Amino acid sequence: MSKTVIGMDIGGTNLRGALVTPEGRILKQLKIASDADDGIGAVVDNIANLVNELSREGNVAGVGVGIAGVIDSRAGVITQAPNIANVVNYPIRYNLAKKLGGDINIAIENDANCAALGEWWMGAGKDASSLVMITLGTGVGGGIILDGKLWSGADGMGGEVGHMTIYPDGALCNCGNYGCLESYASATAVRRMVKEALAEPGTETVLRDIAPKTDPDDMPEVVMSAALKGDAASIRIWERFGIALGIGMASLVNILNVEMIVLGGGVARAWDMFIGPAKTELKKRGLRAPAERVRVERAKLDGDEGITGAAYLALGGR
Amino acid sequence: MSKTVIGMDIGGTNLRGALVTPEGRILKQLKIASDADDGIGAVVDNIANLVNELSREGNVAGVGVGIAGVIDSRAGVITQAPNIANVVNYPIRYNLAKKLGGDINIAIENDANCAALGEWWMGAGKDASSLVMITLGTGVGGGIILDGKLWSGADGMGGEVGHMTIYPDGALCNCGNYGCLESYASATAVRRMVKEALAEPGTETVLRDIAPKTDPDDMPEVVMSAALKGDAASIRIWERFGIALGIGMASLVNILNVEMIVLGGGVARAWDMFIGPAKTELKKRGLRAPAERVRVERAKLDGDEGITGAAYLALGGR
Repeated sequence: MSKTVIGMDIGGTNLRGALVTPEGRILKQLKIASDADDGIGAVVDNIANLVNELSREGNVAGVGVGIAGVIDSRAGVITQAPNIANVVNYPIRYNLAKKLGGDINIAIENDANCAALGEWWMGAGKDASSLVMITLGTGVGGGIILDGKLWSGADGMGGEVGHMTIYPDGALCNCGNYGCLESYASATAVRRMVKEALAEPGTETVLRDIAPKTDPDDMPEVVMSAALKGDAASIRIWERFGIALGIGMASLVNILNVEMIVLGGGVARAWDMFIGPAKTELKKRGLRAPAERVRVERAKLDGDEGITGAAYLALGGR
Repeated sequence: MSKTVIGMDIGGTNLRGALVTPEGRILKQLKIASDADDGIGAVVDNIANLVNELSREGNVAGVGVGIAGVIDSRAGVITQAPNIANVVNYPIRYNLAKKLGGDINIAIENDANCAALGEWWMGAGKDASSLVMITLGTGVGGGIILDGKLWSGADGMGGEVGHMTIYPDGALCNCGNYGCLESYASATAVRRMVKEALAEPGTETVLRDIAPKTDPDDMPEVVMSAALKGDAASIRIWERFGIALGIGMASLVNILNVEMIVLGGGVARAWDMFIGPAKTELKKRGLRAPAERVRVERAKLDGDEGITGAAYLALGGR
């Protein structure tokens, strides 16, 4: 029987797990509630249940777990996790191993790093040996692959490309800094820029009617369709988004000279809206040779990059 | 007889070479004119002569050569070198090997990358496994060591931390971009900021008398002593220098989570003038944990970091 592994993605709402072959093929995928509000004990119980259920399908050699937060992957410890109640320095690998029994290989990693590994292994970065993955979601995450290996920093806290400073005097970011990439190229940033547009009394925009009725989670989608219909304020929001992203990509390319930048996350759906200004800025600000050779592409695994990368780690890759 | 190697640093004016032990000790150092204006042929002749002269002192196992410019270290080719006349895609390793005869190991690398390797091997970064070296000179160069290895990019063009964008609408940089770190934290930047200060008619400063009589090369030194004497405009120049450097360091720390940042190059002599504002900005903008743990230190090898790093490469290190 071939050696299959389980890749998992632990979110604040859901917990997804999949049985994955050594070739990266997903055989079966399950999704259950993570119960993150009940604390890490409940989450670990749910992880164990999911592992046991998926294990019935085949001989499982390892489990890889991706979690949002600061992860000490060498020690198998969650240092901080914003989406799980009361977690500080929690030894998840040890506790999960105890619960699962046996000597199954368990790998723990930050979710954005898993996404980068997944896209590099099976997605847009399949042919690249170096890439930066930028995930455009509620915030902006990132993962760095150099020479076919994840670089997650001296303490596993690297890859935080969302917190590069783009505009030193710019908007306040959730991290406390001003003008981070995240405060211009995320769903949160789109919502703020909508507010800013509406605060200018002279601005005529369809957003004035639509935005107040829109669920905050749907705002990027709404601003996208408004832009597609030619709403100038909405087009301008995506332009600002793209310019900030392009400035960030240029700095990354100048620093790291990677082969690829892969853009993923929910807000990457607005690709057509922001990629033009982003690429223009990259070409303008990047050093000629590395900026010309870098490929900028959309993530391909469509939400499965995290579990795929976690599975790669479970197979013993790094 | 112990295996010694030769480390070399090829500048536009001088060519320096040293006999170095496997433990990183410099046994003997020589400096001759590089004759870079006469073209690469003359430079290679001079390198060969220096190698032959140093070889008389001991059994030489390898030669490492650091050169400013875009270097394809795998192929041993100088892609571009700003300080040597008419060099495009020059196969220096092949031509130097032909001239030296025998089967001596030859390594070619960008000079800032050599400096980073030197400081990591024998200097300020001796105890670190990851660091970014930033060289503050006429321009701003850089080199990145991750997990004890040089990361010079997919094409050997990485580490150009001087061309991160700090102020998107800032001063024009030599690279054609606006607001690069280099246009705020280099000797060139200091000279521009002096001009800017003098252009404000209201500004009272001793620079108004001194600057016109100062050799441009000496300007950082002159602005440093003026600042030490309390000249407000000069203090402000070093503050702006430090703030830009701190913004850049914060982004580097957030992206790479390295253990150390090492600051070298001639302008690092003004350390006391800029390090305060630089560290303040780093703490303000860096993510808490990686910014608190990163050590920011001055380079230790005092001009020998380049030849030391080149020697490391000659020993077969990377």
